[in-house]
Amino acid sequence: MSEVLPGYIKGAWWTPESDAGALIVRDASTGAEITRVSTDGIDLASALEYARTVGQASLGALTFHQRAVLLKQFALALTERKDELYALSARTGATKSDSWVDIDGGIGVLFAYSGKGRRELPNSQVFVDGPIEPLSKDGTFLGRHVFTRLPGVAVQVNAFNFPVWGSLEKFAPAFLAGMPTLVKPATPTGYLAEAFVRILVESGLLPDGSLQLVSGSVPTLLEELRLGDVVGFTGSASTASGLRARTPGGVRFTAETDSINASVLGPDATDGTPEFDAYVRQLVTELTTKAGQKCTAIRRAIVPTASADAVIDAVRARLEAKVVIGDPRAEDVTMGPLVSLAQRDEVLRQVQALQDAGGRIVIGTSDAPEVRGIDGSSTADGAFVAPMLLRFDDANADAVHEVEAFGPVASLLTYGTPSEAAALVARGGGSLVTSVATHDASFATELMTGIAASNGRVLFLDRDDARSSTGHGSPMPGLVHGGPGRAGGGEELGGIRAVLHHMQRTAVQGSPDMLTALTGVWHAGASARADGTHPFRKSLAELRIGDRIASASREVTLDDIETFAHFTGDTFYAHMDEKAASANPFFPGRVAHGYLLVSWAAGLFVDPEPGPVLANYGLENLRFITPVSPGDSIRVDLTAKQITPRETDEYGEVRWDAVIRNQNDDTVATYDVLTLVEKERSAA
Amino acid sequence: MSEVLPGYIKGAWWTPESDAGALIVRDASTGAEITRVSTDGIDLASALEYARTVGQASLGALTFHQRAVLLKQFALALTERKDELYALSARTGATKSDSWVDIDGGIGVLFAYSGKGRRELPNSQVFVDGPIEPLSKDGTFLGRHVFTRLPGVAVQVNAFNFPVWGSLEKFAPAFLAGMPTLVKPATPTGYLAEAFVRILVESGLLPDGSLQLVSGSVPTLLEELRLGDVVGFTGSASTASGLRARTPGGVRFTAETDSINASVLGPDATDGTPEFDAYVRQLVTELTTKAGQKCTAIRRAIVPTASADAVIDAVRARLEAKVVIGDPRAEDVTMGPLVSLAQRDEVLRQVQALQDAGGRIVIGTSDAPEVRGIDGSSTADGAFVAPMLLRFDDANADAVHEVEAFGPVASLLTYGTPSEAAALVARGGGSLVTSVATHDASFATELMTGIAASNGRVLFLDRDDARSSTGHGSPMPGLVHGGPGRAGGGEELGGIRAVLHHMQRTAVQGSPDMLTALTGVWHAGASARADGTHPFRKSLAELRIGDRIASASREVTLDDIETFAHFTGDTFYAHMDEKAASANPFFPGRVAHGYLLVSWAAGLFVDPEPGPVLANYGLENLRFITPVSPGDSIRVDLTAKQITPRETDEYGEVRWDAVIRNQNDDTVATYDVLTLVEKERSAA
Repeated sequence: MSEVLPGYIKGAWWTPESDAGALIVRDASTGAEITRVSTDGIDLASALEYARTVGQASLGALTFHQRAVLLKQFALALTERKDELYALSARTGATKSDSWVDIDGGIGVLFAYSGKGRRELPNSQVFVDGPIEPLSKDGTFLGRHVFTRLPGVAVQVNAFNFPVWGSLEKFAPAFLAGMPTLVKPATPTGYLAEAFVRILVESGLLPDGSLQLVSGSVPTLLEELRLGDVVGFTGSASTASGLRARTPGGVRFTAETDSINASVLGPDATDGTPEFDAYVRQLVTELTTKAGQKCTAIRRAIVPTASADAVIDAVRARLEAKVVIGDPRAEDVTMGPLVSLAQRDEVLRQVQALQDAGGRIVIGTSDAPEVRGIDGSSTADGAFVAPMLLRFDDANADAVHEVEAFGPVASLLTYGTPSEAAALVARGGGSLVTSVATHDASFATELMTGIAASNGRVLFLDRDDARSSTGHGSPMPGLVHGGPGRAGGGEELGGIRAVLHHMQRTAVQGSPDMLTALTGVWHAGASARADGTHPFRKSLAELRIGDRIASASREVTLDDIETFAHFTGDTFYAHMDEKAASANPFFPGRVAHGYLLVSWAAGLFVDPEPGPVLANYGLENLRFITPVSPGDSIRVDLTAKQITPRETDEYGEVRWDAVIRNQNDDTVATYDVLTLVEKERSAA
Repeated sequence: MSEVLPGYIKGAWWTPESDAGALIVRDASTGAEITRVSTDGIDLASALEYARTVGQASLGALTFHQRAVLLKQFALALTERKDELYALSARTGATKSDSWVDIDGGIGVLFAYSGKGRRELPNSQVFVDGPIEPLSKDGTFLGRHVFTRLPGVAVQVNAFNFPVWGSLEKFAPAFLAGMPTLVKPATPTGYLAEAFVRILVESGLLPDGSLQLVSGSVPTLLEELRLGDVVGFTGSASTASGLRARTPGGVRFTAETDSINASVLGPDATDGTPEFDAYVRQLVTELTTKAGQKCTAIRRAIVPTASADAVIDAVRARLEAKVVIGDPRAEDVTMGPLVSLAQRDEVLRQVQALQDAGGRIVIGTSDAPEVRGIDGSSTADGAFVAPMLLRFDDANADAVHEVEAFGPVASLLTYGTPSEAAALVARGGGSLVTSVATHDASFATELMTGIAASNGRVLFLDRDDARSSTGHGSPMPGLVHGGPGRAGGGEELGGIRAVLHHMQRTAVQGSPDMLTALTGVWHAGASARADGTHPFRKSLAELRIGDRIASASREVTLDDIETFAHFTGDTFYAHMDEKAASANPFFPGRVAHGYLLVSWAAGLFVDPEPGPVLANYGLENLRFITPVSPGDSIRVDLTAKQITPRETDEYGEVRWDAVIRNQNDDTVATYDVLTLVEKERSAA
């Protein structure tokens, strides 16, 4: 008898004292027992409380960047031992390339969030959202939005199909936000989740309480949640709805559910076009990857009536040429079994429901397929299903838009006009993804207008991206994953968006000084300090937000404008021709070049000798407000606005607020100057 | 007997054929009958379908900017006739300043969204969200997020307290998004909602189906909704929870509910400080404005133990000096009645519940107050309640954090340490707003850390903003209104954020050309066109995205660098000192100024003669990628990226994509150039 699968609770491995009633988990191809699962006697309330106290405290001690650096280290730790994960993954029925999606895909999410966290978040704990909202004419009262982390625990309730990726894609943004996670994997593949958690625990890198694992059922978990906790659910739409109802009010509940996704072939994409080929290739990939057990898989192939037979023939030919069903550990196998016999039976039931509703199987069979075992061994106990394509003569049959066979099964529907195609897509009631194979921008636009609001993601496939496309079924870390309606109504991934789903947006109102103190970002109108040391002479260790250089004033002459025009070649009439410039609605006459003003401003604020400021790497949000005429003078205030030391370099970013004013104190231009500055003064 | 209040359904005024069972609505001060309300026989399903078809079609024919211009015209139409609204508003119990919040506040939201819509949204129908996400190394496959409008109807279920503002603050963002609205006002003040809808209808400005009004109860409305519709509810937390449960899955439900908001007095803000005064002034305002019938009103005054008596004395003194209760139409009255006798009775019941839980009334009385009628007339039938402050000795009594008396009632609690204060605020279980009176940035930061995640808005009040503050109780159009947990968990307002809540975010994947076609924004890698006409010679009528000027190449010499350095004064060592520059980690030796490069680029791409391009008003997202050494050459590609004609000017914005490259085709710098360009070529 196999061991009971442990959980990782309150910083220690946990198994029930008794294994009475434990469920047996079996190898998908051979039926061999792998482990048993039970949570008999588990104290979920104290696990949650551990996360809310110890986990919140340990993550709260870290900045966004420090958490991001840890994510990369987690990714490296998993990479180091990924062979162990691949070996276990094969037992779930996954081929090597299926496992790659789950394991390397999951590790890839950690790397992606590590990079995005450091590039797109500040090295602090508060994320400032959107621009300053002025609330008073005199500038003494401002509004700003900030995101701060939720004070609870992020609970994952996961599906069986991607035990690694499905967990890490939720864990990475929660961790980056500073929220501890409790993972509840699906029983059939929970041993693979246990394995990756074990690697992370053994790496010694996990902050206390930042990750817990419950292996097995959790009947009262959701009822224990409260305001400040979040639930991220992946699985069936019906389970989502039940769990949502059990979750206390105020707890955020994000669902990502399998949906009846569509793939549309454009009228232009006839047999022989690159788009037709790309469409067929993708459809076969989606049918067979993970044996079709993907929330994002294509369930509805929506094609022009005239192309239907050609699509069927091409799909059949490609399946015959490419697909070998069997134990993923056997040679040449390209498609494995479903995860379990129960799942196989369920899929066959749904195929029957589709047939009952008018679907005819035009490719494949619902009979047990021929399969390849390891070394010729029998696989009679495996959960194998052949890829199937059903054809519906009535594209509006309800079942084809509602019934999901969560396996290697899709249905083919035909359409006449583009608006019919869009209407068929929308019949799915909300999908994770729809793909459209077309090289016709006007068809693409019409379809997009009709289907965007019912899809979380839409992929356009054509000759330009057929080779580089990441594919219909692949959520990307930088793109939102989730969709409206039937797809669950939630959003995951999407880069920093998912981090913010673990935080609360709060509008903060106050004086510029108070907002500066609260956000760590200098706000115009707040106190600034010129202490006699040029701020360019200060390292990050010495520099403070609000440090300012207020420059001397410099007069701009007509000669200067002409010199600049001839030097740069920018002889635009507004600088060179008094009469024409005066006729322009925005200029009083000849004016100085905007580029002259910002170039001079740099001359006015720069401290030229070598020092901690290494480089000006950019400039943002430049607006020219008041034109500068010959005879006007300009001066510039440069104020340290935001300081972002890097965790893994000896320097960091400093954003400076620059305001150029004229002799009347009118604002001439405003912008941000971006520089790289050393953390410590180098021993020069 | 009064008339039955009409609704506005399917483009016509509607009243029931029979008035059997109609509810009587009365003047809050005098009890006089105003109107009767019934929806007997109404066909809500067809009203919703009218919105989804006719309303969607008429709004779909307009761009964001065209809708924004209409919002301003609505605001002007209401302003023109606002006296009518003020007269009716007095009947609800509102004083002139209460009415100002509701009526001018509501009109202000229209103006604000009109301005933000034109400044912050494109003049098209698709909103592009966030940066390009590269998905392939070769740049042929990209991701981008877009928002498109939801295909349904935005249903408002409103509270009685702000019949104008409460409706317009939901209507403005829905309209801007392109979603038709159906308003369901609260019965006690529905006649005021009817009045503003009537003004809009009579203005002739409303696109068909964009606004409908149901006066009266709507028992089956929510059940009729489906994916693509949204509900915006304002009212009590318990009603919200009931309505949410009745709303079909997939329909977005936003709730903004009354919450047990707090106002914290800082330990530094002792009697005699400006913060103490500001705190007391604000508390009295919040008690008396709208007779305390505001979702945002202060219910818990949380003060240092040592300041409790001083606060009570100061609040009492100010109430006595400033507050005259009576019919809002009577002279000198500063505080009106509650909206109805039923509401008065409910408030007194909740006061009793607070007393039962340990609250002692230390200011005011639950007895009927002395009131001032019009011309000495009796107001015995009015719903008058005196302002009351209760004191709780046990700050942790559950009731004070849970029971709301939705009238001029607040409770006073005391705290010792800052963390106690934060914990008390959070006990509210999620609030719309908390205010903090302090001039101590470290107290402010500690409190903020503890309470931000349980608040939709936090206001910091101190000597710097006490005069300019818009006040604890006032949601602002640019700031998010709504809060977690008890406050409903929704977000309204917040500028464009609320518009996006009426749209679906979709990740779009495709080639640069396809994304360009779908978004109307040129994407790097997409086709560009140089047709022989310099794009600066094209008006908006002629210019197309993708139009490009590819400049000649120009060599940068050491002389040029020195000339520029001396001309601008920017003698930073990286440009002037070979040895020091070589020691810098980012430079191979002396390099050209970044400002020289962008100035020369302008000289390379400019077409100097007068033409449709009027001005360069700014520059964004400038990044310097590869340094330029003496002897290198640069050239620039400038490509029309986004074209935004203005609705109310003879010109518009053109955003240009600028890429500077060197002689090896390395990217030197990337940025966006912002210009103003005429719609038509002027007849020069």
